[in-house]
Amino acid sequence: MQRWKLTLEYDGGPFIGWQRQDEGPSIQQCLEEAVTAFSGEDVRIHGAGRTDSGVHALMQVAHMDLEKATKADTVRDALNYHLKPNPIAVLSAEPVVEDFHARFSASGRAYLYRILNRRPPPALECGRVWSVTRPLDADAMHRAAQILVGHHDFSSFRASQCQADSPVKTLDRLDVFRAGEEIHLIVEARSFLHHQVRNFAGTLELVGSGKWTNAHLRDALHAKDRSAGGPTAPPQGLYLTKVVYPDVG
Amino acid sequence: MQRWKLTLEYDGGPFIGWQRQDEGPSIQQCLEEAVTAFSGEDVRIHGAGRTDSGVHALMQVAHMDLEKATKADTVRDALNYHLKPNPIAVLSAEPVVEDFHARFSASGRAYLYRILNRRPPPALECGRVWSVTRPLDADAMHRAAQILVGHHDFSSFRASQCQADSPVKTLDRLDVFRAGEEIHLIVEARSFLHHQVRNFAGTLELVGSGKWTNAHLRDALHAKDRSAGGPTAPPQGLYLTKVVYPDVG
Repeated sequence: MQRWKLTLEYDGGPFIGWQRQDEGPSIQQCLEEAVTAFSGEDVRIHGAGRTDSGVHALMQVAHMDLEKATKADTVRDALNYHLKPNPIAVLSAEPVVEDFHARFSASGRAYLYRILNRRPPPALECGRVWSVTRPLDADAMHRAAQILVGHHDFSSFRASQCQADSPVKTLDRLDVFRAGEEIHLIVEARSFLHHQVRNFAGTLELVGSGKWTNAHLRDALHAKDRSAGGPTAPPQGLYLTKVVYPDVG
Repeated sequence: MQRWKLTLEYDGGPFIGWQRQDEGPSIQQCLEEAVTAFSGEDVRIHGAGRTDSGVHALMQVAHMDLEKATKADTVRDALNYHLKPNPIAVLSAEPVVEDFHARFSASGRAYLYRILNRRPPPALECGRVWSVTRPLDADAMHRAAQILVGHHDFSSFRASQCQADSPVKTLDRLDVFRAGEEIHLIVEARSFLHHQVRNFAGTLELVGSGKWTNAHLRDALHAKDRSAGGPTAPPQGLYLTKVVYPDVG
């Protein structure tokens, strides 16, 4: 038995999300079926985090155990072969120690949220960005975002269905900047609450469009109540970009 | 009657190409139908160039004549409304002088060709890049590409169905460079032969992978025979990025 670390990229558009569900195809299910097609083994794949329906990954990490003895490049290439035509790619497969756990060993996660801020709708980036037509002030969004950085009770930005034990998290980074016609949010923390990044994006959009001041945002954070936060931004702008492990082992 | 210049962005994936054809939906047809839905007029739209099926545009230009008197922002917004859910966006609509012609007034065109050069297949960029798994030397491709720059008979890189009067063109720029996991070709000229950029990409891939030397490429150019050139790279890596006019009029 060998434990494998898989690094993945996917377009979340056609999926019900990371997690296997009866309602539609999931990334986890596609991967598990590809592993079975390759190895004949009935394997459970564990992801570093559950991405919602429509949320993308430039770098998701997962692990699995295989009886079959095989080379790393073979695992990667065989899974990519069997994953076709699903928009999921295995970027790398690495043998790891047996106590490596994609979710519990992770010491950090990073997300990108992309807003297309122009009057015309997206064409090439349709399904890849949140289209916001009113002009946004990225600098104002960045300044306000610093209120959220640090150790806080993030109940105001937590989905009601969130399963985390505590709403208290440490937000390490929330940078907002303009990139051409887009506004990008870069968000880093050890771990996140459900919908936390999308709720940040939806709330900071209120600041960028001038509807909210920094004082509004501070009040929302301190209210510790989801109804005080801004709306949830749509899933298609969100990308899981990095999962960090203290020891790649 | 007012002549309008339209600047467009589109995902070429779902279309048979720019030009109206019986075999399937075209970008021209979608635009003409949107104009009719907005104005009630039966309008012909003229593009700066015909992109093939699967070829994208970050900036295509077209013109049309409208009887209806209306504001520029209204034309843009109304067309975008009626274009939904097609992945075509009107970036701007501008009134222009009546002798402006999207194709004949253009003094330059630029294309981007994107190669994803890694072993795993594309996931997020599926349909947006040419996937080449063997390692390519972008510097070698760039050096070889300079052989093609200048005034030449490009018969070796011209599709048999090309309708241009002459195979002689002046290539102003052909830069090749690595951008992360991708290799980008930036190509500029006053005008191009049919499949010229895709034939450049397919041929330079032979240089990048070490199959061809600069001498091979020089021989191919001088042969003035399509069978001497390299293969045609697939359409999904190609983007029309700019159409230049000497006077925006």
